[in-house]
Amino acid sequence: MLTIHHLSVSQSERIVWLCEELELPHELVRYRREPGTGLAPPEYKALHPFGTAPVITDGDLVLGESGAIVEYICRRHAEGRLILGPGHPDFVGFLYWFHFANGSLIPSTMLDMLAPPRVEAASSGGAARSPPSRLERALDTIEDRLGYATFFAGDTFTAADIMMCLNRVLATRDLAPYQNIKSYMRRIAERPAHQRAMAKAEPDLPRKMP
Amino acid sequence: MLTIHHLSVSQSERIVWLCEELELPHELVRYRREPGTGLAPPEYKALHPFGTAPVITDGDLVLGESGAIVEYICRRHAEGRLILGPGHPDFVGFLYWFHFANGSLIPSTMLDMLAPPRVEAASSGGAARSPPSRLERALDTIEDRLGYATFFAGDTFTAADIMMCLNRVLATRDLAPYQNIKSYMRRIAERPAHQRAMAKAEPDLPRKMP
Repeated sequence: MLTIHHLSVSQSERIVWLCEELELPHELVRYRREPGTGLAPPEYKALHPFGTAPVITDGDLVLGESGAIVEYICRRHAEGRLILGPGHPDFVGFLYWFHFANGSLIPSTMLDMLAPPRVEAASSGGAARSPPSRLERALDTIEDRLGYATFFAGDTFTAADIMMCLNRVLATRDLAPYQNIKSYMRRIAERPAHQRAMAKAEPDLPRKMP
Repeated sequence: MLTIHHLSVSQSERIVWLCEELELPHELVRYRREPGTGLAPPEYKALHPFGTAPVITDGDLVLGESGAIVEYICRRHAEGRLILGPGHPDFVGFLYWFHFANGSLIPSTMLDMLAPPRVEAASSGGAARSPPSRLERALDTIEDRLGYATFFAGDTFTAADIMMCLNRVLATRDLAPYQNIKSYMRRIAERPAHQRAMAKAEPDLPRKMP
């Protein structure tokens, strides 16, 4: 039996959502973050040598790393559903956005938190913005993509949408400049599988439409 | 014709190495970083909307994101060579390390550069190390893996080794505590395809054995 070890308010939301989209039987074990520090509790860190969320177990297998888990579940348990192969017209879009999530978006978010873009004083005495941060460029690239694609890969919902799981990254961000992202998030929030996943993974968080 | 746009001293080394391992005909265009700032030159940033290395072009296609490029080249140009499928005994190892590279190792390296681990004063008056940083935990996890696996996926060289391309991440690090990583890097450095790739990608850098 596939078991998802879900750390609250973490990337392991993706895996709960994936299993709901695939309608895959699974067990969900929830772990709360430590009060005060917000860190994963010791029993979560003990699941896997690297100690980060998400983690799944499947019989004797313990697997971490969101990209690996998504591919493992789709290919081993769902005959490759939600993954596009080289013969599919949206193959390249699928690959790009599947890998953009952890390869560019998450690092851009980390950079933004650790080294926020500075507001520099302009010579005129007013305040001028420095060049767009990497996160702003990532959001602009996403906004552009969602202006002409219904889902990240193209016309169909795929595992690239699961990987890009924007509601965690954008939770505290003003989305007013990003109308395409807002529309996309509304489309995602309307998916029954997404609603079931969020209700199971984060039953205490208020649901709000983007 | 596949063209690799290689930014010097960057992750695009991976793609040059991949094409040498696959013995795939390609054109290599090298771009030097800007003197002083070390940034990518404007003509590199102009290749792709997100502006980061690596970038390939293939006919009309312009593709960024190292994970996407590696999968694209293996699946579209090499019939899936160096990628392990769900029927392979090392499938899970392959997936984990392929995704660990950008999902955990690179972010850990970034964290280490932006927020280096602090040496905290112990109550005894001496200096005590804080808990291991995320990068130290990543290196420990890698060291452990390479103690019982010849390559990251298991017995055979795969695209997971390309993604983990350690020489860039570990270039300035003391590897004395990591004997398994050192042995692995020696095995990699002995590969003719790796030697050809490094000679083409970074002809000005001195070659040294780990």
